[in-house]
Amino acid sequence: MPFTRVQLNDEFWAPRIAVNRNQTLRAQYAHLIETGRIDALKLEWKPGAEPVPHIFWESDTAKWIEAASYSLASHPDDELAAMVDHVIALLEQAQGDDGYLNVYYTVVKPGKRWTNLRDNHELYCAGHLIEAGVAHAQATGSDRLLNVVRRYADYIATVFGRDAGKKRGYCGHEEIELALVKLYRQTGDSKYLNLARYFVDERGQSPYYFDIEARERGDDPASYWAKTYDYCQAQHPVRELSRVAGHAVRAMYLYSGVADIVAETGDPELLAASERLWKHLCGANMYITGGIGPSSHNEGFSTDYDLPNLTAYAETCAAIGLVFWNHRLLHIDLDGRFADIVERALYNGTISGVSLDGKKFFYENPLASDGTHHRQDWFGCACCPPNLARLLASVGEYVYSESELGLAVNLYVQGTGQAVVAGDVALGIKQTTRYPWDGSVRIELTPSHAAEFELRLRIPGWCRSHVIAVNGKRADAVVESGYAVVKRTWDEGDVIDLTLDMPVERVVANPGVKADQGRVAIARGPVVYCVESADNPSGASNIELPNDAEFSTSFEPGLLGGVAVIEAPGLASDPATWGDTLYQASQAAMRKAVTIRAVPYFAWDNREPGEMAVWLPKA
Amino acid sequence: MPFTRVQLNDEFWAPRIAVNRNQTLRAQYAHLIETGRIDALKLEWKPGAEPVPHIFWESDTAKWIEAASYSLASHPDDELAAMVDHVIALLEQAQGDDGYLNVYYTVVKPGKRWTNLRDNHELYCAGHLIEAGVAHAQATGSDRLLNVVRRYADYIATVFGRDAGKKRGYCGHEEIELALVKLYRQTGDSKYLNLARYFVDERGQSPYYFDIEARERGDDPASYWAKTYDYCQAQHPVRELSRVAGHAVRAMYLYSGVADIVAETGDPELLAASERLWKHLCGANMYITGGIGPSSHNEGFSTDYDLPNLTAYAETCAAIGLVFWNHRLLHIDLDGRFADIVERALYNGTISGVSLDGKKFFYENPLASDGTHHRQDWFGCACCPPNLARLLASVGEYVYSESELGLAVNLYVQGTGQAVVAGDVALGIKQTTRYPWDGSVRIELTPSHAAEFELRLRIPGWCRSHVIAVNGKRADAVVESGYAVVKRTWDEGDVIDLTLDMPVERVVANPGVKADQGRVAIARGPVVYCVESADNPSGASNIELPNDAEFSTSFEPGLLGGVAVIEAPGLASDPATWGDTLYQASQAAMRKAVTIRAVPYFAWDNREPGEMAVWLPKA
Repeated sequence: MPFTRVQLNDEFWAPRIAVNRNQTLRAQYAHLIETGRIDALKLEWKPGAEPVPHIFWESDTAKWIEAASYSLASHPDDELAAMVDHVIALLEQAQGDDGYLNVYYTVVKPGKRWTNLRDNHELYCAGHLIEAGVAHAQATGSDRLLNVVRRYADYIATVFGRDAGKKRGYCGHEEIELALVKLYRQTGDSKYLNLARYFVDERGQSPYYFDIEARERGDDPASYWAKTYDYCQAQHPVRELSRVAGHAVRAMYLYSGVADIVAETGDPELLAASERLWKHLCGANMYITGGIGPSSHNEGFSTDYDLPNLTAYAETCAAIGLVFWNHRLLHIDLDGRFADIVERALYNGTISGVSLDGKKFFYENPLASDGTHHRQDWFGCACCPPNLARLLASVGEYVYSESELGLAVNLYVQGTGQAVVAGDVALGIKQTTRYPWDGSVRIELTPSHAAEFELRLRIPGWCRSHVIAVNGKRADAVVESGYAVVKRTWDEGDVIDLTLDMPVERVVANPGVKADQGRVAIARGPVVYCVESADNPSGASNIELPNDAEFSTSFEPGLLGGVAVIEAPGLASDPATWGDTLYQASQAAMRKAVTIRAVPYFAWDNREPGEMAVWLPKA
Repeated sequence: MPFTRVQLNDEFWAPRIAVNRNQTLRAQYAHLIETGRIDALKLEWKPGAEPVPHIFWESDTAKWIEAASYSLASHPDDELAAMVDHVIALLEQAQGDDGYLNVYYTVVKPGKRWTNLRDNHELYCAGHLIEAGVAHAQATGSDRLLNVVRRYADYIATVFGRDAGKKRGYCGHEEIELALVKLYRQTGDSKYLNLARYFVDERGQSPYYFDIEARERGDDPASYWAKTYDYCQAQHPVRELSRVAGHAVRAMYLYSGVADIVAETGDPELLAASERLWKHLCGANMYITGGIGPSSHNEGFSTDYDLPNLTAYAETCAAIGLVFWNHRLLHIDLDGRFADIVERALYNGTISGVSLDGKKFFYENPLASDGTHHRQDWFGCACCPPNLARLLASVGEYVYSESELGLAVNLYVQGTGQAVVAGDVALGIKQTTRYPWDGSVRIELTPSHAAEFELRLRIPGWCRSHVIAVNGKRADAVVESGYAVVKRTWDEGDVIDLTLDMPVERVVANPGVKADQGRVAIARGPVVYCVESADNPSGASNIELPNDAEFSTSFEPGLLGGVAVIEAPGLASDPATWGDTLYQASQAAMRKAVTIRAVPYFAWDNREPGEMAVWLPKA
């Protein structure tokens, strides 16, 4: 159900969306201007001038347009609309007569377009422009940018494909696949869907296109820094994949595009591959925060269960991509395991990427810190900030799903919605909850007329006990694939009360995860907690959690924008009592009783710098 | 007290010394032959031939001669003696008329001698030859090799120094400093002591000699891979040092040479520097095994408390160097803290470097393994195997110290010794003990005549309770600097019984050591234990040790050459019960009760390959 039909007025997301609109989108526009990304569209760059337009600058600008468009769709804002129009006008001017639209290959390396798909993000930038064009059209009803990106897509369709004279290439950084499916859905032109399918199916075929184009450039394919095309998911045909590998963001964007194609075509092989990849990712390669891709070396996956905390790469964009992919899988098969992943990433590893004031960003999201890792205003490679902006501006999209059968509530967020279910039933939804701080949810339904349909309420994977009442009477709903199903004739004023038991939990990791061995994480509901030195004067890394420690929870409205804080009695080593001693018999090593105070992981590094830890050793 | 006056007949060291003599020294000689190291001394290499003599080949050969000489000193062995004589004859022939003796610079790079002291180990090789020459003379009474190395040292003294026309250089890999002090002590010629002092005092002076010689070679000093001369302890003058840095073996050899100079000269600045370096090393940069130098990048030190277990470099040679250094410090100041380090390294991080059969060696000694780290027959850079051989062949040297004041017993090892104390008292010593498996020690003294002197019995740092009895009567000896002092008139047949309480201990690491946070190591007496998959079918990495688990100890004569095994009830995660699950609430995660079975760390990787862990998480 598109976010345009979902209004959030909760205390968790609504303020974040407002900060995103009022702070983040403005600040990012300023950065796009300051760094030359917008002016580069004037195509006035001359050799020797600084800055040199970069190969992926359009992607940053495009993601910002997409984010701003989403924001405009729910909150009219003349100033923001003017910024968007300014950029769109420049994009219109920057587009070539043939439809081509890429500053780098127009002014920095003219004549070299499509010569290095492997490394240079050309189709990736095109994909983000297409997403921006679709988003802008949906948000504003204007076809201006959509026409631009459609012309570009039409041109791309003349360049790539299996027909004689076309290049059998595909992009080293996936993105255009999912963008083309969006364009297909917006325009109804199956050419775009077919091109997306071509890009997916051609990927990883032998002989490798990246080998061929490298030789055409005069490069030795064997000198590829990443050694194999697993880095960009192009070592094997996509439908044969069974293990996540390589650059995590690229993988997520590819898998999202694959899921889109499955949704459109029902392709059973691609669906089976998706299922294999999902199991591999979520069973052995995902942080508890929904962060993925532990290695900085390839910004991506390494070996199963290799999930180091201090050095976790866990790029913000990768967690966002995980949301995109699992949201798509959820709409192929309404299974709570997909929504669980969406929720895990949304409440933890994605929004950790932005500061509470909306102005600073993490590229990497480690699960432990020695106090030296901090958010930054912007990055040379600035993919993450506008990616967060577009996620936040459209987060309402993840709350509900509608279908012939009825309505599914995927996430619990206070607000309203307008669905269409069971053919012709216009369904008003009002959700009242303090989720994620409280597990009580009230849903009031206002169908346009009394009608029988299913209401599917997601029972989160973290929840081990729940109660459902309809109009005050307990309802024993069967849970199917993670959703409690209440099927009945619904009428105006029907009220559903869902109570999700939400105790503080000690979470342990699979024994394969050596980094977390002997440690526990604290979680409550969907929120993963961490300890920071700001709350724990003994230092986050010196705290140990006794097995029998009892937790207490309190909501602190003035802290970190309003969060539930968890406390427990703990023990802390006292470095001062150790002096020069490096090893001691344990009975001689003094520890002191402390109150462990844990805050949501997503809110870390918003106060004075200090240590942080998610996984605590047992005392 | 030299090992030539100490005979060990215990069940721990004596069999190792025999294996060293019967297996290791033979196997290493075969490797020296097979790899061309011995034949290279014939100086017959021609360009294009393989193998090309390597810059540090002489050091391997020299350490082997030193080890073989030590062995010959206590165990006549015609076959071994013939091998030694064969090599010495080749060394005699390889020596130039001017005394120079280095194959690489004679046949591979003639005319280039002394052009790259920073990198090419030329004086390091000379130092090992000198050590070999001194050892051979002491062991056999023959001056053959001593004369060779003396001529070489005499030549070196004409090349290096502060006099006009001499090079103000020093070696990138320290070793010659301590060797020259040995040569001084053997010959009485103070020229060698002065040259050692020159090398120590010149080191790290500005302008840097390594800069100068690099420019003379046409190299840019700024292109030095290690960035600073901290790598070879030459960034700052030695007497200003206060933090261990750089390559760990180089540091230990330098510090040993410095201690030798302090012993000879009483230099207070060098002594103060030694004390600072000792505190920094032993307070923040040493594994519980006595392994040092955690980083493979520089084969050396990194940052304080950076002591990762799985990736520990902890080179065998560095632990051996730690023994050398602390033994020297002990003879400057009879303080148990130095003997504690000697003992820690001897029973753990040094002898872990050699397999029980004496034929395979570790270069790196990690404190955890995923089952892929194994000993090897030999190495291209083969410093560790002959270093272990010379340590084992001379280990008796560490047991006693003799002086005017009396006798100090530094280590408890069953055997006999012949000391000279209190001027003219020839003192027979008989030590009876099952140490390190048992803390009971009986010492029987047989002085040549009744005389008053001190018997100093080391009370190890790990021991928290001890009892001393003299001739069956409890003696309340004051403990000074880690030694219990029993001063009385000793006569033939006096018997001292020392009982060191030796329970199994849980040891914890300083909270600065993040790798060991929330974990405990198991130790008993001087021996650090580990768990191996060979004894723990659940896998070493899945085991957790409850805080209240009681240990039991049993000696198993047939296991790993005879070791005390420690068992305790523990818990193990069961990967099989996890399936595809990556995270679970802890109460849902099944663990099974297991019997943890720990063996001495030094004996690990002598059975089927598998995981190993020293630091166990708390259950």
